[in-house]
Amino acid sequence: MTLAPSREDLPAPLRTALIEVANRLADAAREPTLRHFRTALAADSKETARFDPVTEADRASERAMREILAELRPQDAILGEEYGAKPGTSGLTWVLDPIDGTRGYLIGGPTWGVLISVADEQGPRLGIIDQPYIGERFIGGLGLAEVTGPMGRAALATRGPRPLSEALVMTTFPEIGSTEEAAAFRRVADRARLVRYGMDCYAYALVAAGQVDLVIEAGLQPYDVQAPIAVITAAGGIVTGWDGGPAHDGGRILAAANPAIHSEALALLQGDAGA
Amino acid sequence: MTLAPSREDLPAPLRTALIEVANRLADAAREPTLRHFRTALAADSKETARFDPVTEADRASERAMREILAELRPQDAILGEEYGAKPGTSGLTWVLDPIDGTRGYLIGGPTWGVLISVADEQGPRLGIIDQPYIGERFIGGLGLAEVTGPMGRAALATRGPRPLSEALVMTTFPEIGSTEEAAAFRRVADRARLVRYGMDCYAYALVAAGQVDLVIEAGLQPYDVQAPIAVITAAGGIVTGWDGGPAHDGGRILAAANPAIHSEALALLQGDAGA
Repeated sequence: MTLAPSREDLPAPLRTALIEVANRLADAAREPTLRHFRTALAADSKETARFDPVTEADRASERAMREILAELRPQDAILGEEYGAKPGTSGLTWVLDPIDGTRGYLIGGPTWGVLISVADEQGPRLGIIDQPYIGERFIGGLGLAEVTGPMGRAALATRGPRPLSEALVMTTFPEIGSTEEAAAFRRVADRARLVRYGMDCYAYALVAAGQVDLVIEAGLQPYDVQAPIAVITAAGGIVTGWDGGPAHDGGRILAAANPAIHSEALALLQGDAGA
Repeated sequence: MTLAPSREDLPAPLRTALIEVANRLADAAREPTLRHFRTALAADSKETARFDPVTEADRASERAMREILAELRPQDAILGEEYGAKPGTSGLTWVLDPIDGTRGYLIGGPTWGVLISVADEQGPRLGIIDQPYIGERFIGGLGLAEVTGPMGRAALATRGPRPLSEALVMTTFPEIGSTEEAAAFRRVADRARLVRYGMDCYAYALVAAGQVDLVIEAGLQPYDVQAPIAVITAAGGIVTGWDGGPAHDGGRILAAANPAIHSEALALLQGDAGA
């Protein structure tokens, strides 16, 4: 099982360049996302079955980021939620979700975010979870693990082990998931101290910040999860699928503050009725 | 049915004084709430049946506000979540929830808030919903309806009428409520465009800001709801109980952006299966 451990095999100048570009992308996404925030938005829908608004802000945010990549990193591939895949030659892929949590954005809440990551063939190496309205940025990977925001700069470090009965759990359930997935989630949730709902990518940031023990979700896309994987891993946590394998292709996700709580939750998700 | 409409019968100097004091209370609550935010908190529980942490921050926040009231408004009564009721002689009562959403505070999220209101025998006249981490303050009543925050100052105005099928709904369900209450909530939620969960007092702020059409909750206390009533009413909305009567004593709450969506939701909550 490969858990995307911290790897420093990239040359230092490249690491520095990637960190600088990632921050420039996050900076660029703030203007369009905030320009349209809390205004009357004409949201259209990509799907008929489930509500999933795509706003002008979403598209403008991704375009702004792609323009910077075209200038500074033309050799890299891009996978973006709105404008799809662009091939590259460097072996690196920028994975962009210009607004993660468009429903949260639509209601004017403060827990949507801009997700930026860069991956090689092993998975995500650097990730940013940026919340433009709060002015808060979580970054992890390539030797970094920190948050900057209203209270300044702080190191990111996940929580230490504790029993599931003392754990704080976050999820997008009951909004997502099949009946079977919801039942698996409940096996964990019913044993936890507290469950909170519906904060989208902000939930992963709270794992990295040492506030939350577990995030459990289903039906995710690669662009939903790659930045959180990089940030949480850099902060000392673990993100896998519900099968315990790599999570960077999305699907069913278990993000955990440490190996002990990860194991306990994984067993319950896989059908062990527990103690 | 008395819906606490905007009333300007208080003398202008008193209105000005109350607004100034309310802002000073909110300013005072920011320091203790942020000092303890995202630190390892030893939360104890007021109830054994349901998780309800009370933190040092909660108590310090209310103490800071009571000290200011003792100095500037000794003639007024106080009702606070943490330290209970203090009688007064002026006919005015300050109603304080030093941290609304202590579970949201515990996980380090940005949607808890400090609730401050001042009421006379008719109900709340002025309210503040303050979010210290974002640095955002929603104030309504005594002629004011505005928000100040990361994007500056803006007037508060609720959304205009639209069918429930186009409405955005927020709630703390599934965390709260009896089976019967949850079923009533689902009658509304199943007909709405979108439901979002778990943002505590921030949901009411979003009604006032014109982002959300309905907030539906149960089991609230007076200090949970009086500031939201003042802010939403000042912004053009309506807050009642599920019986359509005054809501300032708490219980089952329906907050609505306008009379039309309020009526449609109220009928469904009261058992009308609808169209």
